[in-house]
Amino acid sequence: MNDAPRSLPAITTQTVLDRIQATRAQAHARLMEFLSIPSVSAQPAHAPDCRRAAAWARTELDAIGFATRLVETPGHPVLLATRVGPAGAPHLLYYGHYDVQPAEPFALWTSPPFTPTLTEGRHGPIITARGAVDDKGQVTMWLEALRAWHEVAGGPPATITVVLEGEEEVGSVNLEAFLLDHAPELRAADIAIISDTGMWDIDTPAITTRLRGLVYAELQVRGPSRDLHSGLYGGSALNPINALTRILGGLQDEQGRVQLPGFYEDVAETATAQATEWAALGFDEAAFLGEIGLSTPAGEAGRPAVERLWARPTMDINGISGGYQGPGAKTVIASEASAKVSFRLVAGQNPPDILAAFETFVADHTPPGYHVEIRAHSMAPGFEVSAANPYVGLARQVLAEEYQRDAVLIGSGGSIPVVESLRRILGLDTLLMGFGLNDDQVHSPNEKFDVRCLDHGTNAHARLLGALARYI
Amino acid sequence: MNDAPRSLPAITTQTVLDRIQATRAQAHARLMEFLSIPSVSAQPAHAPDCRRAAAWARTELDAIGFATRLVETPGHPVLLATRVGPAGAPHLLYYGHYDVQPAEPFALWTSPPFTPTLTEGRHGPIITARGAVDDKGQVTMWLEALRAWHEVAGGPPATITVVLEGEEEVGSVNLEAFLLDHAPELRAADIAIISDTGMWDIDTPAITTRLRGLVYAELQVRGPSRDLHSGLYGGSALNPINALTRILGGLQDEQGRVQLPGFYEDVAETATAQATEWAALGFDEAAFLGEIGLSTPAGEAGRPAVERLWARPTMDINGISGGYQGPGAKTVIASEASAKVSFRLVAGQNPPDILAAFETFVADHTPPGYHVEIRAHSMAPGFEVSAANPYVGLARQVLAEEYQRDAVLIGSGGSIPVVESLRRILGLDTLLMGFGLNDDQVHSPNEKFDVRCLDHGTNAHARLLGALARYI
Repeated sequence: MNDAPRSLPAITTQTVLDRIQATRAQAHARLMEFLSIPSVSAQPAHAPDCRRAAAWARTELDAIGFATRLVETPGHPVLLATRVGPAGAPHLLYYGHYDVQPAEPFALWTSPPFTPTLTEGRHGPIITARGAVDDKGQVTMWLEALRAWHEVAGGPPATITVVLEGEEEVGSVNLEAFLLDHAPELRAADIAIISDTGMWDIDTPAITTRLRGLVYAELQVRGPSRDLHSGLYGGSALNPINALTRILGGLQDEQGRVQLPGFYEDVAETATAQATEWAALGFDEAAFLGEIGLSTPAGEAGRPAVERLWARPTMDINGISGGYQGPGAKTVIASEASAKVSFRLVAGQNPPDILAAFETFVADHTPPGYHVEIRAHSMAPGFEVSAANPYVGLARQVLAEEYQRDAVLIGSGGSIPVVESLRRILGLDTLLMGFGLNDDQVHSPNEKFDVRCLDHGTNAHARLLGALARYI
Repeated sequence: MNDAPRSLPAITTQTVLDRIQATRAQAHARLMEFLSIPSVSAQPAHAPDCRRAAAWARTELDAIGFATRLVETPGHPVLLATRVGPAGAPHLLYYGHYDVQPAEPFALWTSPPFTPTLTEGRHGPIITARGAVDDKGQVTMWLEALRAWHEVAGGPPATITVVLEGEEEVGSVNLEAFLLDHAPELRAADIAIISDTGMWDIDTPAITTRLRGLVYAELQVRGPSRDLHSGLYGGSALNPINALTRILGGLQDEQGRVQLPGFYEDVAETATAQATEWAALGFDEAAFLGEIGLSTPAGEAGRPAVERLWARPTMDINGISGGYQGPGAKTVIASEASAKVSFRLVAGQNPPDILAAFETFVADHTPPGYHVEIRAHSMAPGFEVSAANPYVGLARQVLAEEYQRDAVLIGSGGSIPVVESLRRILGLDTLLMGFGLNDDQVHSPNEKFDVRCLDHGTNAHARLLGALARYI
């Protein structure tokens, strides 16, 4: 982004918003068309539909002045589209995906998943269809914003790259190769923009500025060379399950703090302003836990729930296995036992260091004589985009204009792998400005998107482009 | 047993031993006949063979003056035989079983499992067949001793009850009901005698005076009402596997001592004389562990291996299960986790107290908010027959006479459920005088019994009856 303002385009953002308002019906109709293509990436029978969805989006982008390419992969193609903006304009990389989750079980849908249906919801009209919000509806928002800028001003006030993949719902298996292959041109972008996250609630826009990272490791403890009779050998032979529980049982203290050496060393305390903003959200942990049958919170004692979920690292044992697991009793000393252990990380923590600390901890807590093996399944750092990032600042500003209410900076306890790939491979920060709601039934039957969210989101994207124009 | 000696029978033990020696070939032939009946209790197809084996034994006992009954059960019948001895004579209850383990896999046998074969082994001739030692060969020893006393002296110098069951290899599922039904008559016995255990080595006879008991419990920890995404919930939702490892990880300290409150309160220290005897055995724990790929012993630090295996209680986790156990990674917080935990007990420890202590320990170590359930699968006390028991004394004496070497009092880390049933239901102690060897391949292909063991064992049983005669 250039700091020096340049001549504004001849139109104003309001003109663009007026155009969007005047053509809502057509925009909605286009989304309905997009949603009617059953582009289920996981199911081979739908491979032609995936290609059809990519082609559909390509036609839309062709129509609004983009140079488009369908880049083949071993799976479904990536649609790569570019449009060069005014000299010196910022360069935005919009990422989205045209594939959707399988719709099964069909019987639970109130209307056919690929026959998008408009009905009345809690907050006005809703569109029900597989992909309504994840991600066709959210992609539509920036697509329509780009269209309006094209129609009103002959193009957006920025250079735009669009990456629309077709394998997000199957782990983006070919995306890294694509990003590496096209790194030289993609690296030219200033920021990535993704709409695949949610609002705080229907009235409160949100920007997701934090995602947790992950170190996921498997621990295997081996003892005797075969399973033994626990009567004849108990008291002499090593027991790998005894050892495994001894090792893992010490991973957290009574206060819920992870006991790996140096685990919290690179974890920054939440800034007071951020903590105050989060406190104001009034997150109801009792209700959050009540829905899953719990009343006692876990995690580090003495910290607010939102901080525990978004800004603090965790340790969870995701699976454990060893010995006899059938019904009744078997008096066996197993020859091995294993566990899958994961650490959610926050920005600042270095995954290889955490893995090394885990290895050290395990070595220090393994009783003598056992063979222990640790295998890492995945390592990804936590993500945080600073509140001081100028794009975050612009997004907050346009969201406040659109909603007449301040946007909140939220986090997510999970990971969005593409965000990590964009940073690692392209060096790009990501602006996560999403308009989904908690009750959107993402990945479940009756996925829906509120038209109110769709319309505000489209406006917000148009406003964001307008705000950028001031910097040209 | 009466203390006052009465008139001796007109014959001496030596006459009986001479008779046994003179008729060895016939005795071996009878065992071969018994072994050729495939009385596999676990396999319904062999039910008629089980009945055949019971009938075979019945005919043998009929022939030597016993009153016999085949007592039906829901499974295979129990052979109950009695012969009243001289007035005031001791009353012995011989227990054995006519059923055998399945012989599969047949391909691994060097000769057909139910075609008993005499070949040359490390220590002279061996009989190879399923059941050779477990338990047909060992039953044959006291059966032939009883026969010789019958033929030479018109009957043994004791009242004899024989209980020969056909379901030992399937958990003696109907034995308790049988013992309860016949308790009034069976309780009249002074002691039970079982030959189903082993010698220390081919030259060193042994009496098993200790068996460990067992408390086997299942622990289930429940958290959220459904499996959760560990990213979205980690740091707020309880994790049952985290809790389970915390609970179990503290069950033993670094010295291998079980941490249940009061666990060792009723555990007697091994008497010095016993410890000295055991030390003299020169048990090679390095070799014992080396065979199963281990070099570091487990159990309580600072105690000899024999004591750890025979005279000290243990804790072993026999199985553990929870969450994702497939290949690769799944970021899940499971809704529940469970473990099977067993404590081997020694005589003096009260199983219900140990279970209660486990429940207390678990309650004290469960982090807040989890639902924990403990279910006991089995509870059996440890067994110890005192070295001062007169039958143990007599057995040591006759074994020393037979082998010209002192018998050792050994233990077994496992349990023999019938011994516990005999004590609980009938109030009987058991003399465990067995003649198996470690390399007998019990329950495995090529099960064998050394003829040297068979012959010495038969003599020892005849001597034991003779020694009792002195007390009449």
